[in-house]
Amino acid sequence: MGGDHGAPVVLNGAAAALAARPELRFVLFGDENVIAPVLDGLPALKARSVVHHTDVAIAMDDKPSQAIRRGRKTSSMWLAIDSVKQGESHAAVSAGNTGALMAMSKLLLKTTEGVSRPAIAGIWPTLRGRSIVLDMGATVGADADQLVSNAIMGAAMARCLFGIRRPLVGLLNIGVEEIKGVEAVREAGALLREADLPLDYRGFVEGTDIGTGKVDVIVTEGFSGNIALKTAEGTAHQIVAVLREEMSRNIVSKIGALFAKGAFARMKKRLDPRTYNGGVFLGLNGVVVKSHGGTDAFGFSSAIHVAADMVANDLVDRIDRGMELAPHEHHDHTNQQARVASAS
Amino acid sequence: MGGDHGAPVVLNGAAAALAARPELRFVLFGDENVIAPVLDGLPALKARSVVHHTDVAIAMDDKPSQAIRRGRKTSSMWLAIDSVKQGESHAAVSAGNTGALMAMSKLLLKTTEGVSRPAIAGIWPTLRGRSIVLDMGATVGADADQLVSNAIMGAAMARCLFGIRRPLVGLLNIGVEEIKGVEAVREAGALLREADLPLDYRGFVEGTDIGTGKVDVIVTEGFSGNIALKTAEGTAHQIVAVLREEMSRNIVSKIGALFAKGAFARMKKRLDPRTYNGGVFLGLNGVVVKSHGGTDAFGFSSAIHVAADMVANDLVDRIDRGMELAPHEHHDHTNQQARVASAS
Repeated sequence: MGGDHGAPVVLNGAAAALAARPELRFVLFGDENVIAPVLDGLPALKARSVVHHTDVAIAMDDKPSQAIRRGRKTSSMWLAIDSVKQGESHAAVSAGNTGALMAMSKLLLKTTEGVSRPAIAGIWPTLRGRSIVLDMGATVGADADQLVSNAIMGAAMARCLFGIRRPLVGLLNIGVEEIKGVEAVREAGALLREADLPLDYRGFVEGTDIGTGKVDVIVTEGFSGNIALKTAEGTAHQIVAVLREEMSRNIVSKIGALFAKGAFARMKKRLDPRTYNGGVFLGLNGVVVKSHGGTDAFGFSSAIHVAADMVANDLVDRIDRGMELAPHEHHDHTNQQARVASAS
Repeated sequence: MGGDHGAPVVLNGAAAALAARPELRFVLFGDENVIAPVLDGLPALKARSVVHHTDVAIAMDDKPSQAIRRGRKTSSMWLAIDSVKQGESHAAVSAGNTGALMAMSKLLLKTTEGVSRPAIAGIWPTLRGRSIVLDMGATVGADADQLVSNAIMGAAMARCLFGIRRPLVGLLNIGVEEIKGVEAVREAGALLREADLPLDYRGFVEGTDIGTGKVDVIVTEGFSGNIALKTAEGTAHQIVAVLREEMSRNIVSKIGALFAKGAFARMKKRLDPRTYNGGVFLGLNGVVVKSHGGTDAFGFSSAIHVAADMVANDLVDRIDRGMELAPHEHHDHTNQQARVASAS
């Protein structure tokens, strides 16, 4: 059991999720000596759980290759994912090392037919509710086909999470005309416009559009997706810090703060990152959800809820079916290869 | 005279900048029939201005290639940049079409020795003051050498704007270990760590760090830079919208809002995008500053102040001197080329 705070957060999170969804059952992987005493204090969870003991744990700073070398077949992370592969569990949820979790998930569960690289999808609070943004950093860079895969996978997740039949999908782009280098995004746009997919493609969106909820799914590659996510987090912290400073600058503002306490609490709740916790690994033959390492029990329970929604609504099947309809860009790599070969 | 609101914004902005900096003089390019009546109402500005008439204007949605075809030697944008080239003006400030402004600037002013692609640098409000973020979208993608150029150019701008001798510089990266595709960023990091440059390289920073003011200059390529900027803008709007909604939800919060009016005004002022208006084109033999198209006179005056700071502190010279010290990555393209040639 990983994350920055270990077993208590995970177990209390599981207990909270179970209270809301009594149909859940848990297979817990980790050090029994740590798990057992916490579980004794959570009898409802204990009654719905099986514990598999292992004292091999992946560290938060292990590199994926190290993690696999050290933790293959023995670590709690490996065993949890393997339990999905074996059909003992329907989904794995971990607050551990993201890179290791993705590497082990790929190795054990393999990617879905047609998906060359899995993505991590995040849930973003918007003015209209929630949107899905992917990729949050599983892979850097993407060609048109990979962006189209991300669109299909994100839409499948939106159908599972929001229950909408044809999610609105936008491609993240920058608003500068005729610049070099976004050919992949443009080409993906053309493919999505023409294809007959179970989604409603709405064209390009910019960074300013993410928080408005204009579309249900925002598609990009992992570098800019991660930058967008982290920049939004940073901006939110910055604004709250400025607000706090200014509200305590003089007595009038302090009185204002007192009266505004309820409003601030409601605002905080609406934007609470714990509510949106849970990065879903898309494109694998199984459901794996990454919880933020630093979250608390409430945050961890959100990640469990996301995993349960994905399982209940057949995420993997929906992605499979979507990928069967995927259009592809016309690569002329083979022709180029041929030309080079005949020239030599 | 461009931008969404045309001559009145530009001229009132110039008048405001002149009031703060009486040493300024202006060369105004545009339709005399529009400019003259506005200028008549601004006698101080009129006394320090020369008007060059042209009724050819670049439209906000012209593609750069169209703009050059249509506006070469005749449009107000072309003439303003050419006036910098001819030494009649020290800097050009425009609220017009970004792509056209960059294309014309490159054509007329040419890039500085050693700079392969110019960048647009933005000024970002932070908890400690202001930081510079580049590239904001001049070019998409960057190799290690281009990122190093951006670091040198951004640091030169920081010395001009903030008056610090060795600005703190960070490379924007994502916090996921051992993923593919950020070789350019890693290589740039290695080059910056070893090089002897007039800047203090502080390693990688993430999106969350931008708003903290941890470094003075954040270096990235144009796609992620633009995504970061727009996402921050969107997040700020979103939070303010949520705050406004919650503050007016009930009578207690409304009373709070009344008392907090001053605090909200101070917060707004500290984060006011108009204060940070002015994207500086870096890497050209001349100073060109892009004002946001939708800004007002106050915003436009900020862009003029930035331009004046760049001129007064010899931006172009500082970049020239910085670039002379630039380290380079070891390309083996020529070797590869040779190998292919000999194989055929």
